[in-house]
Amino acid sequence: MATQVNPPRGMRDFLPVDKRARERVLRVIRAAYEHHGFEEIETPVVEDAARLHAGLGGDNEKLAFAVMRRGLTVDDLRAAEAPLELADLGLRFDLTVPLARFIATHRSNLPPVFRAIQIAPVWRAERPQRGRYRQFMQCDIDIAGEPGITAELELLAATGDALTRLGIPDAFIRINDRRILFAALEHAGVAAEQHERALITVDKLDKIGREGVTEELAGRGIDGARLLATLDAISDLASAAAPPDDRGPLAGFDTAVLEPVRELLAAEVGIRLEFDPTLVRGMGYYTGPIFEIAHPELPFSIGGGGRYDGMIGRFLGQELPAVGISLGFERLVDLVELPAEAVAETVALLVDKAVEPADAVAIKRALVAAGQTVRMQRRTKNVTGLLAQLAASGATHFAFVRPGDTVDSLELKPIA
Amino acid sequence: MATQVNPPRGMRDFLPVDKRARERVLRVIRAAYEHHGFEEIETPVVEDAARLHAGLGGDNEKLAFAVMRRGLTVDDLRAAEAPLELADLGLRFDLTVPLARFIATHRSNLPPVFRAIQIAPVWRAERPQRGRYRQFMQCDIDIAGEPGITAELELLAATGDALTRLGIPDAFIRINDRRILFAALEHAGVAAEQHERALITVDKLDKIGREGVTEELAGRGIDGARLLATLDAISDLASAAAPPDDRGPLAGFDTAVLEPVRELLAAEVGIRLEFDPTLVRGMGYYTGPIFEIAHPELPFSIGGGGRYDGMIGRFLGQELPAVGISLGFERLVDLVELPAEAVAETVALLVDKAVEPADAVAIKRALVAAGQTVRMQRRTKNVTGLLAQLAASGATHFAFVRPGDTVDSLELKPIA
Repeated sequence: MATQVNPPRGMRDFLPVDKRARERVLRVIRAAYEHHGFEEIETPVVEDAARLHAGLGGDNEKLAFAVMRRGLTVDDLRAAEAPLELADLGLRFDLTVPLARFIATHRSNLPPVFRAIQIAPVWRAERPQRGRYRQFMQCDIDIAGEPGITAELELLAATGDALTRLGIPDAFIRINDRRILFAALEHAGVAAEQHERALITVDKLDKIGREGVTEELAGRGIDGARLLATLDAISDLASAAAPPDDRGPLAGFDTAVLEPVRELLAAEVGIRLEFDPTLVRGMGYYTGPIFEIAHPELPFSIGGGGRYDGMIGRFLGQELPAVGISLGFERLVDLVELPAEAVAETVALLVDKAVEPADAVAIKRALVAAGQTVRMQRRTKNVTGLLAQLAASGATHFAFVRPGDTVDSLELKPIA
Repeated sequence: MATQVNPPRGMRDFLPVDKRARERVLRVIRAAYEHHGFEEIETPVVEDAARLHAGLGGDNEKLAFAVMRRGLTVDDLRAAEAPLELADLGLRFDLTVPLARFIATHRSNLPPVFRAIQIAPVWRAERPQRGRYRQFMQCDIDIAGEPGITAELELLAATGDALTRLGIPDAFIRINDRRILFAALEHAGVAAEQHERALITVDKLDKIGREGVTEELAGRGIDGARLLATLDAISDLASAAAPPDDRGPLAGFDTAVLEPVRELLAAEVGIRLEFDPTLVRGMGYYTGPIFEIAHPELPFSIGGGGRYDGMIGRFLGQELPAVGISLGFERLVDLVELPAEAVAETVALLVDKAVEPADAVAIKRALVAAGQTVRMQRRTKNVTGLLAQLAASGATHFAFVRPGDTVDSLELKPIA
C-alpha cells in the first residue's frame, strides 16, 4: 500500500536544507526592518469570516479558504443558502486586513505612529501552477498613524536596505499615485462610474499591450488612446525638472497631484525609483502613492504596496492613515545571493554497536555542553561512504565511539 | 461605530513586546535542539482531511477545524450527509500526524535516522478557557528510524538541555511504558477488550483519586484495587536495585517488560526522570516508553511524548520506528526565566516639523548604515514625556533633528 503521499495540493513541505535557507533569508529581512525601527507583531492565521469578507481584500477575498463553523448539523446544511454561511472563520489571504483589525483591537496599546513588521504565511486557493502556491510567505512592513510622505520614504528606505542586504541590488520600485490615476481618468474624459473598470484594463498593459488596452477600453466606450496619451504626458511631466510651456495633452491638468510622487522621486532612499503612471495595483483601498517592486530579469513583481488611509478606519471607527509594502517572499527567495554561511562545527559520532546507549548519550551531552553541534550515528561497515554522506548533510568533524570511550578519550578528526 | 474588534474567539494577537519575548524563547529551544543534531522542517498548516482523520489523533481529531472544499454549490450542501463531507482539508491539531505524512512523502530524501525539529502552531477547537487557546505553538522533536533506546535517551537529553537553557531546572519527566501498562492490565486480570477503557480511567488518577478510579473501574466490572496494587508493586520493583524475593502482587509477572524503563532511569540525561506506572498519555498510537514533562509548581504537564513505532507505517506503507517529545510552548513560556537581554542601542530621532522628510530619512539611513537601530519620531512640545515614552518602548539614545542637520551634526545623547 505504498501509495503516493503528498502535502495538500498547491502546498509545500520544506526539508531541512530548504528550511534553513528560507529562515536565513527571513532573518536578514527581519534584521533590516528592525534596524529601521519596525517591530514585529503576530496575529492568528484565521480571522472572523465577516472581517475577511468586508470588501477590503479585492479579488483575493474570493480566494480565501473558509473554515467551517463547529457543531454544524445536517439541518444546518439543508437550511444554508450559500456554502459560505457555514463558515465563521477563514484563512487570511493577506497580512493587511489582519493588520487593520489588529490596530483596531490594540490602538490604545500602540504608539501614535506604529511601524509594524509581519512575516507570516497567507493562503489563497489559486489554481496551482509553477511558482504559485496556496500557502506562501509574505513579509510586510506598515506605518500607521503618519499622514505625511515621511512614512513612504521610511518604507522605501527599509525595503531598499532589505533588498541590498539580500544581495539584490538590481531591484527597483515602480511608483505611482492613485490620485494621479483618477486625475488622469478625469482629464481624459472617462466618466467617474467607469474609473475602476478603466483601471482594471490599464493594469493589463504588461500583458495585452497598448493596442489591447485601447481596444478593451473602446469596448466600454472609453477613448483609450486619449487616456494613454494623458498618462504618457504625465510621465514626462513628473520627471521634467520644470513643467514645459506647451503641456500638450495635459493642458488644464492640475499638476499639484504630482507633488507627492515628485517628492519621492527626488529623495535618495537607497533603491532606484521609477515613475510609472500606468501602474495601477489591484487593490481598491489604496488612496495615495502605490509601489511595485520589480527586477530587470523578472517578468513579475516581487512585492508592492501603497497608502491606504481609509482602511483601518473601517475596523477602528475612526480614520487612521497607513501605508505599507509587502515583499513576495517566495519569488524573492530564488533571487537571493547571500554569501556562504560560516559553517558551524558539527561533530558526527560514529557509535559502535557494542557501546551502551547511555554511554554514547553521555558523550554526546558532554560535547554539546562544550558548545558543539553533535549528530549520533551508528557506525556502519562502509565508513568512507558514511563520512561522505555525513559531510553532505553538514557534518565537519567525526569521531569513533568504542566501548569504554569517554569524551576525553575521543579523537575528533575533520571530515576531509 | 467604534465597536469591540477582537481576534477570533480563543485566539490571540501578539504585540511587539510579547512577540519579542516569545521569539527569544523559541530561539533558545531551537538552538538547544540543533546542538543535539536535530534539523528543522516545515509542513503546511493544513493536511488533507482524510489524513487528519485517519484515527491517529485520538480525541484531538474531533477538535480539528475543517476547511471547506472550494467550489461547493448549494446542491452539494443538500446532498451531504454530514458536515465533514464538505471539507477536504483541516488545520492540523498536532505536529505528529503531519510529521508522519512528511516522512512518508520524503523518505528517500531523508537520512536513515532522521532527527526532526518542528516549531509551529497547531489548532484545536477547545472550549476557550484560561490558559487554553485555539491556536497555540508546539515545539516537537522526533527521531524516526531508530528502534533502540538510544533514541529515547537522545530526546530526553535534548529536552533536558532545552529546559535548562530556559532556566527551568526544576522540571522533571515522568516516564512509563505502554508495554508495562498492558502487562499490568493482563496481570491484574483485566480482559483484553477492556484494556483501552481501563487506561482511560487510570489516566484520571490525578483528577479523581484512587477511590474515584476504583469506583469507575468497578462500574465496568474491573477489579480496580487489584490493578492499582499491581501498578504500585511495579513502581517499587522498577526502582529497586534488585527484584525482592517476595514479589507479592507481582508473583508470576514477567519483569522483562521493565527493562527499557530501567535502562532509561539508570542513564544520566540532564533532567530528573521519575517512573510513574500510572502514567497513560491519551494517544492510542504509543507503543513503548511514554513521557510527560512536569514541574513541581504546576498542576498540568508542560509537554509529553513517547514511542509510536506503528504510526508512520500507516502513511508510508512500511514500518518505521519513531519516538518524539513535544513541548507545550504556551505553558512553558510563562515559566521561563532568561537573563535580561543585552539592549541593542536604539536611537530615537526627534524630528522638527520644519525638517524636509527626505532630509530626515537621509539621516536615518546613514545611522542604520552605521549599524544603529533607528526610530523616527516627530518632535512634540513635551520632550520629557516623549523621552519617557521612547525609553519605555526600548529607545536608549536620542537626537534632535533640526533643519540643516546632517548625520554629522547630530548630537546623540543617552536617554537618562
